Amino acid sequence: MVAIVPKLQINSLRLHTDFTELAQIGHTANGGISRVALSNEDLEARAWFANQIEEAGFFVRDDEVGNLSGVLPSKAKHAQTLLIGSHLDTVPNGGQYDGAIGVLAGLECMRAISDAGIDLPFHLEVISFTDEEGWWQSFFGSMGLTGTLKSHHINDAQQDNAAFRAALYRAGILVSEVDRAIRPMDDLCGYLELHIEQSARLEQARKNIGVITGVVGRSAYVYTFYGEGTSAATTHVNDRCDALQGAALFITKMHALIAEEYPDGIVNCGNIEVQPGTFNVIPAEARLRVECRHQDRTTLLEIESRLVEMAHTIADTYRLSVKVEEMYKREVAIMDEHLMTLIEGICDEQHLSHQRMVSYAGHDAQILSPFTPTAMIFIPSKDGISHNPREYTEWHDVENGANVLLSTILRLASEKV
Amino acid sequence: MVAIVPKLQINSLRLHTDFTELAQIGHTANGGISRVALSNEDLEARAWFANQIEEAGFFVRDDEVGNLSGVLPSKAKHAQTLLIGSHLDTVPNGGQYDGAIGVLAGLECMRAISDAGIDLPFHLEVISFTDEEGWWQSFFGSMGLTGTLKSHHINDAQQDNAAFRAALYRAGILVSEVDRAIRPMDDLCGYLELHIEQSARLEQARKNIGVITGVVGRSAYVYTFYGEGTSAATTHVNDRCDALQGAALFITKMHALIAEEYPDGIVNCGNIEVQPGTFNVIPAEARLRVECRHQDRTTLLEIESRLVEMAHTIADTYRLSVKVEEMYKREVAIMDEHLMTLIEGICDEQHLSHQRMVSYAGHDAQILSPFTPTAMIFIPSKDGISHNPREYTEWHDVENGANVLLSTILRLASEKV
Repeated sequence: MVAIVPKLQINSLRLHTDFTELAQIGHTANGGISRVALSNEDLEARAWFANQIEEAGFFVRDDEVGNLSGVLPSKAKHAQTLLIGSHLDTVPNGGQYDGAIGVLAGLECMRAISDAGIDLPFHLEVISFTDEEGWWQSFFGSMGLTGTLKSHHINDAQQDNAAFRAALYRAGILVSEVDRAIRPMDDLCGYLELHIEQSARLEQARKNIGVITGVVGRSAYVYTFYGEGTSAATTHVNDRCDALQGAALFITKMHALIAEEYPDGIVNCGNIEVQPGTFNVIPAEARLRVECRHQDRTTLLEIESRLVEMAHTIADTYRLSVKVEEMYKREVAIMDEHLMTLIEGICDEQHLSHQRMVSYAGHDAQILSPFTPTAMIFIPSKDGISHNPREYTEWHDVENGANVLLSTILRLASEKV
Repeated sequence: MVAIVPKLQINSLRLHTDFTELAQIGHTANGGISRVALSNEDLEARAWFANQIEEAGFFVRDDEVGNLSGVLPSKAKHAQTLLIGSHLDTVPNGGQYDGAIGVLAGLECMRAISDAGIDLPFHLEVISFTDEEGWWQSFFGSMGLTGTLKSHHINDAQQDNAAFRAALYRAGILVSEVDRAIRPMDDLCGYLELHIEQSARLEQARKNIGVITGVVGRSAYVYTFYGEGTSAATTHVNDRCDALQGAALFITKMHALIAEEYPDGIVNCGNIEVQPGTFNVIPAEARLRVECRHQDRTTLLEIESRLVEMAHTIADTYRLSVKVEEMYKREVAIMDEHLMTLIEGICDEQHLSHQRMVSYAGHDAQILSPFTPTAMIFIPSKDGISHNPREYTEWHDVENGANVLLSTILRLASEKV
């Protein structure tokens, strides 16, 4: 085993070549990327990535949930595996950086280490997880690897999963075999993920690196207000039971509550459906889905219960009834304190400014974090724009992030030696 | 010409038999009626009505826009025509009374006059107008008859009219010939329409008869708020441009404005469409259509302009833009003062309580009123419910209305003799 080279750097040009090649796959007319999970474009990106892994001289590995990896094996006996990576899939018409940067920087770190002839005390594995963005099922790959993918994620009785199953089959993923993707968690010694921030906090604070403390917990509720669909022309104002008026006031008050009392919380109402939905009938039903995020589990629960209470109060005011259904719940994820400190030290050594921050967006790291020491390194996003063709990160920020990732791998190696 | 019989009454049993027979056509499982214009059920109702006209010994008349009439001709030379009637079509799953009562009471009045051997100084024509409810085009029949049906009503470039044209053709209505339905307005001496109130003002005031002064003017505007569809997870509260928040506040404030400052006005927002409409993206666009009704033309214009101003203020508050489009405009319709006074006198003679009132719903009478002296007689609706299977009017109220209609015809006849 050779000595660790502390000043090792990634090859920025090589990384940039990969970046521009990958950005050709699924590119849209307006400069965006459509590479939704299991699509032709996603499968093409996987094939390209497998080629890059082989060309760099690493082992290609895939599993029963479609995760695709390159492995630099350690010569050490009983070596564990350090996972590094992210995902190659995108939202429809998304950007070039989200996910891609983490996978490509991981591959570049592996090449840099391999080129330097360094033998690590752990197997190093760069991994692209399947369907992080949730075109079919959010975190399909990382849940499959950690054994948290449940039958209802594929066989949801509330919707038709025929297209999902067909897409899985086409990608060579057999539903009957997904359990074989589960890895013994003792085999892992950690997971590191480099990602763009997707908001503007680093940019606004003029920091180079974000050290992620955790990923916010998240819940989704559907609120359905019920009124009476009488004639819009002839029903007197005092006799109206207008479901949309209730829903509208709820939206306004919900945002006001969060702004005033929970500045660290995030809520969104992305859609509202009105029945019967015609211009001359008073809305009989208004259905809206509310997403709620907070870094603190207790506070998230408090927000949820206050919103439910608020919905009932508003329903009473407008002579409506309201039904509240919890659709989704994801617990707060906590990153590894030792890794955070280690990354902060590396930033200081490399003269990169940094700050600790919570991630409001979901990442595969939150799925891994309960099972293995996990860390995330964020780099700035221009104007905080993401999931959008205008998503942009300065290249020197990508370099910085990749070098911090590389140094973190090497520091972990030196700790284990 | 025989003397007018002032105490002539309709045959309630005969009218009720017609009512129950007609209510079988297009009846739904929950007691409602689905007889949308030009449907099989509508065509069946027309055939049934033509049979009833013939059986009663009157002439059947139809025209190039599908209006169907029964005519009791006058022996007088150069006689004009008094139209009485309403419509046989319904909204989907509507009630048994809306429209049907006006047509059937009209036929019954004609039978009562004919049975009494009365020769009127005008032709009496009971008419069922095509598509009053606007399944395809509101007031298609009455606009066709008055010459106010324009090419764009059939050939709307903003939508696919293929199904409408097919339905017209199937009903024997040729688009190329609709202009031939126009009647010289000098041939008419008036139009009388008996209708259920569709709101609860008569019931609440415990009045038997409503004497309609006019039909409210009506406008429809589409408001589209534009924001920015960034990530719901990562966009900071202060950076959000949430189109739905703007739309929601607009809905709340619009209703508050009307309730506080325009108690005689009616507004409705029956639907709202959000783009992209997914749970994890901030609404980039929220589109809503607002219906606005008022009996006074100037006040309606004032409401419209205040709502436009309000939309722009709210858009500014939320960093949005807003587009406002006028979709539809129908002027205030004024009923004939002489006819109103005459009807009030008849109510007094028949010991029926009455009040003048405006109609918030549209009726064929509003299309006729600019061209010929027009009056509407309203009877109470139970709980004001209409366009609904629960629509209900006490039978003695139907009798009252039909008898007032009959006396009005006879009074007009005596005035002309």
